[in-house]
Amino acid sequence: MFSRSNLVLQQLLIKNASRNSSLEQVQYVKPILTRNLAWFRGQAVKEAFGTRLKRRLRNLLVVTIVGGGFYYGYRSYKNYKWYQEITESDEVIGSKPRIVVLGSGWGAVPLLKHLDSKKYEVVCVSPRNYFLMTPLLPSVSVGTVETRTVIESIRSLVGPRVKYVEADCVDIDPKSKTITCNSDGANPVSRGDDVKAIVKSSKREGGASSRIIKDSARSRPQFQMKYDALVVAIGSENNTFNTPGVEEHAHFLKEVLDARRIRSAISDAFESANTPSQTDEERKRLLHFVVVGGGPTGVEFAAELADLVREDLHHYFPRLVANDVKITLIEALDHVLSMMDKQISDYTEKHFRRENIEVLMNTFVKEVKQREVVIQFKGSNQLTSIPCSVVVWATGIKARPLTNRIREIIGLKVQSNRMGILTDRYLRVKGVEDGSIFAIGDCATIEQPKLVDQIQTLFEEADTQHRGALDLQQFKLLVERKVAEFPQLDIFSKTIEKTFQEADKDKSGFLTLAALHLALEKADRKIRALPATAQVASQEGRYVADLLNQIPNLSANDYQQHDLKPFRYKHMGSLAYVGSDSAVLDFTGTRPILDLFNLQPLSGRSAAYLWKSFYFTEMFTGRTKTLLAFDWIRTHLYGRDISRY
Amino acid sequence: MFSRSNLVLQQLLIKNASRNSSLEQVQYVKPILTRNLAWFRGQAVKEAFGTRLKRRLRNLLVVTIVGGGFYYGYRSYKNYKWYQEITESDEVIGSKPRIVVLGSGWGAVPLLKHLDSKKYEVVCVSPRNYFLMTPLLPSVSVGTVETRTVIESIRSLVGPRVKYVEADCVDIDPKSKTITCNSDGANPVSRGDDVKAIVKSSKREGGASSRIIKDSARSRPQFQMKYDALVVAIGSENNTFNTPGVEEHAHFLKEVLDARRIRSAISDAFESANTPSQTDEERKRLLHFVVVGGGPTGVEFAAELADLVREDLHHYFPRLVANDVKITLIEALDHVLSMMDKQISDYTEKHFRRENIEVLMNTFVKEVKQREVVIQFKGSNQLTSIPCSVVVWATGIKARPLTNRIREIIGLKVQSNRMGILTDRYLRVKGVEDGSIFAIGDCATIEQPKLVDQIQTLFEEADTQHRGALDLQQFKLLVERKVAEFPQLDIFSKTIEKTFQEADKDKSGFLTLAALHLALEKADRKIRALPATAQVASQEGRYVADLLNQIPNLSANDYQQHDLKPFRYKHMGSLAYVGSDSAVLDFTGTRPILDLFNLQPLSGRSAAYLWKSFYFTEMFTGRTKTLLAFDWIRTHLYGRDISRY
Repeated sequence: MFSRSNLVLQQLLIKNASRNSSLEQVQYVKPILTRNLAWFRGQAVKEAFGTRLKRRLRNLLVVTIVGGGFYYGYRSYKNYKWYQEITESDEVIGSKPRIVVLGSGWGAVPLLKHLDSKKYEVVCVSPRNYFLMTPLLPSVSVGTVETRTVIESIRSLVGPRVKYVEADCVDIDPKSKTITCNSDGANPVSRGDDVKAIVKSSKREGGASSRIIKDSARSRPQFQMKYDALVVAIGSENNTFNTPGVEEHAHFLKEVLDARRIRSAISDAFESANTPSQTDEERKRLLHFVVVGGGPTGVEFAAELADLVREDLHHYFPRLVANDVKITLIEALDHVLSMMDKQISDYTEKHFRRENIEVLMNTFVKEVKQREVVIQFKGSNQLTSIPCSVVVWATGIKARPLTNRIREIIGLKVQSNRMGILTDRYLRVKGVEDGSIFAIGDCATIEQPKLVDQIQTLFEEADTQHRGALDLQQFKLLVERKVAEFPQLDIFSKTIEKTFQEADKDKSGFLTLAALHLALEKADRKIRALPATAQVASQEGRYVADLLNQIPNLSANDYQQHDLKPFRYKHMGSLAYVGSDSAVLDFTGTRPILDLFNLQPLSGRSAAYLWKSFYFTEMFTGRTKTLLAFDWIRTHLYGRDISRY
Repeated sequence: MFSRSNLVLQQLLIKNASRNSSLEQVQYVKPILTRNLAWFRGQAVKEAFGTRLKRRLRNLLVVTIVGGGFYYGYRSYKNYKWYQEITESDEVIGSKPRIVVLGSGWGAVPLLKHLDSKKYEVVCVSPRNYFLMTPLLPSVSVGTVETRTVIESIRSLVGPRVKYVEADCVDIDPKSKTITCNSDGANPVSRGDDVKAIVKSSKREGGASSRIIKDSARSRPQFQMKYDALVVAIGSENNTFNTPGVEEHAHFLKEVLDARRIRSAISDAFESANTPSQTDEERKRLLHFVVVGGGPTGVEFAAELADLVREDLHHYFPRLVANDVKITLIEALDHVLSMMDKQISDYTEKHFRRENIEVLMNTFVKEVKQREVVIQFKGSNQLTSIPCSVVVWATGIKARPLTNRIREIIGLKVQSNRMGILTDRYLRVKGVEDGSIFAIGDCATIEQPKLVDQIQTLFEEADTQHRGALDLQQFKLLVERKVAEFPQLDIFSKTIEKTFQEADKDKSGFLTLAALHLALEKADRKIRALPATAQVASQEGRYVADLLNQIPNLSANDYQQHDLKPFRYKHMGSLAYVGSDSAVLDFTGTRPILDLFNLQPLSGRSAAYLWKSFYFTEMFTGRTKTLLAFDWIRTHLYGRDISRY
């Protein structure tokens, strides 16, 4: 009870104080502070309901006003700072070396975020003015997550100091260090100038006023831009493997527009099937969805589609879902998610069977027609035609035209890899003498030198006593010293003694040149290009940023002299969502920290939570984080929206 | 302190109880209950931090489990009920009279929601499978509100008992009571069959994989459907007043796709202007936005665009916004928002000047070209060309082709109104004998009989004493009795004595036939078609639902006999958002309750709060309400997204 009398006393004191009119404000604040302090000290007070309510309302008011004040203050300051920085960076144009980054994806954004904009003038050139959270595209294509959630404007992402220009780079001149952008020429030509055909045929596109109009807001004259260093991070495009009909009839799942079109097409298929006069056969065709490619994208899309059907469309079209809906996943290899652990592939296939997703393994797609897919089973010559409506093509990637153009400009002799631009282990493009061009992400491939090509030098270097043979100690040193240059040596690092004993067939305790050759050949077989994943691209982006921040100046291109480490990929595991709140996680090959735990592949509900929290933390900004959390809650509460537009 | 010892005692008791292992659970729940009861009684307890934390965590756990349980229970029940209702309504098909509703907009949805689906089989046929919250389209077009927020799937909106078919109605046969849907004929023809031209030209559309593909998910064979009653609620389309170039070059703002295209075009214009090699002249053209039409849509779009520029684009393009951005609103009349109070028009114009929106009054648009608008000032013969990029056309509406087709089928002699389908005051279509077709919303016009056409009958009926003249009492009775049939009499209702004295020019205390003619002519001049607003359409939809629910059977079409009241519009005021957190509200002509308050036009910030709360309450479902609130908060916190796709 003591605290109550204490309060009364305080209130009296305050009442007295408030006679002084200038202190009147304090009257409201002081009891609140006293209360809150009492709460913190663990003292509790008995009070009437009315008093408590009044106090709480006052509390709320004060918190709102103070909080609001702080928030607006913070925002004003941020706006002011943004404006100052953008003006400041406008003023110093030309006084710092300029780094031009082509692209706005997984490689470019970490690079842009970490490049020291005080040291360099950073310019980003990309035809897409936003970053796209590609791994969530399967979710977007069925409406689990909304479109705007997975994109973030490149300007707000990289801040005021980085200049962004929306343009298509069409040519590069490594001699004069210049890029040429936009193919429209010098005239301000609008995209809409030649779309009469579109205007005419789009009359059928739906609502009366929904038509494609001639575009007057687009005019992109050609321009050239000098660079001191250029980073190519332009990604890749879908590989159709020259399968006839894919370009015309199949959906890809690489851009936001693809996801939106798929969403529309799914809804369209159900509405068409729901038309009263539809034949049974046509209804079955309309509700047959085919996914080509059993990689993460294909698997996740099939899983999300099954979720949509089971959780939402079942609600609205109970008969269609029960009788006619069919999802087929076609994979050319003998199991899905082949880059992951076998255990995971098995789990996914079993899970898909439970979800009524048919998985056709060892099956090749020979042609895609407007209403069917022609397939061929491995080892058979017979072509089978499957009637279907929406076909999603998620098989692999190939180089963009600009990637090939760059390879040609540098010389196809050096740039001999058709998959992408060859770089050294510092990610500098091979064949560019001054080292002023870097390439990262899907468009680049790191050249990995073979050990056997340099076996003579390696052997002589290791054979310090000129005995013509290496002992265990020397072999160990060789592996340790050269693992940075030849990452494939990494497979020996844990089993060095076993490897030595295996190679030392005559048990002499020494390796001859021939024995070493055999052992190193084994390592060379492990050489594999890094996978074309977001993980690789963002690590490469981050690496190039750190590299450029560290070097004293851009012409200092002898990196080994400056003690700069070559790029080394740290695999953090792979994961995929497989439907009905389950996911799979694979930690095989993770390094350097995760492999200490020797983590087992994970699947099911717990993996799904990890999957969700991973993507939540991966979202770049607070805005997209908020939107993603909200989308998940919304989908959970209200289901997915099936409106078609 | 007493409560503390009390607690200790209780805990001891509970500990004893928990020795009985079957009661172990109680141990966790009981102290929580005791606590909460103590809190409600206003007793407070001093306790250590650890104890409190533990207690709170337990509280949280119990609340989560119980809450989650209830929620899942509720959801399962709802799903079960939905499924049962959808199956049940499938089973009774054909056993009840069928009401077919064409449309899914402001007229159709209130109708579908309120029609007694136990009495009728209700079928909705519309090419758009969602309801669109049209008044929020200006917000959507700049990204203040997201697309999915303003639409709600028609199926989830009207529930499981109403059948929905996505189809275009192309013909109506009032004799056999049949509608014909889809123009594709009997063959399942996909929309994509003839889009080779689109595929070819869309290579330029942006990202490599973003192209228009041939559509295999759409096949809409023709079908016919019988009806017992038909309600036409197909809305209207944009009126270009045959101005050349509007169809090809101007954006409308009537469908979701329009809003999305405008959003893309705005972003495109800024990115184009930001291209380094752009000329000053072209930059100014690109950033000149023209809005044609000073009605609510045009005004709100101009306002939202100014908000976007000031609040967000200013941030990213400070120089462009400061030097080059220009917004022009073109209006043919002498003030904007001409249907509202003069005071409001003045306020809006003043407000727009402050916002740097140029308002051109008394100006006609003679032609829209791809990069310019040709205007003519009133009273001048000179044509002026304004270079601009995005043109938004929001001038008015005209009848859809189907509306005209229906008028032709019934006979243009009866259906003489070119603005829409003429109906009687029960909203039954004129010229359909059995009264089986209703028309509501933008596509319909209620025929309002003129008083002077029936003056002889009216006079004789009122002149009960056959004096050849009416006294005040008789005139009063005439107005009171006939106001239901002739709504234009309403303007006399408050000033009946004044009107009588004005009409009685010779001050005889009596009105002759000629004097009455003059007075009634005055009333007839007040005849005006109801405005084409959401308010009118939804009241009409609701009215027809009540009417059909009340009549004993559909062939009982003598409504007066059944004591059914004709439709009467209750105006609830008009409102428009005018930018920077201000709105205008007009209550002129509101009835029947609001006019008692004699509300003054309202403008500014308080009106904006009313505007927001009005649209918030108008959102049909909890889902869209949640999304709208979230969108507003998100825009406030993070600004609008300017990504272009």
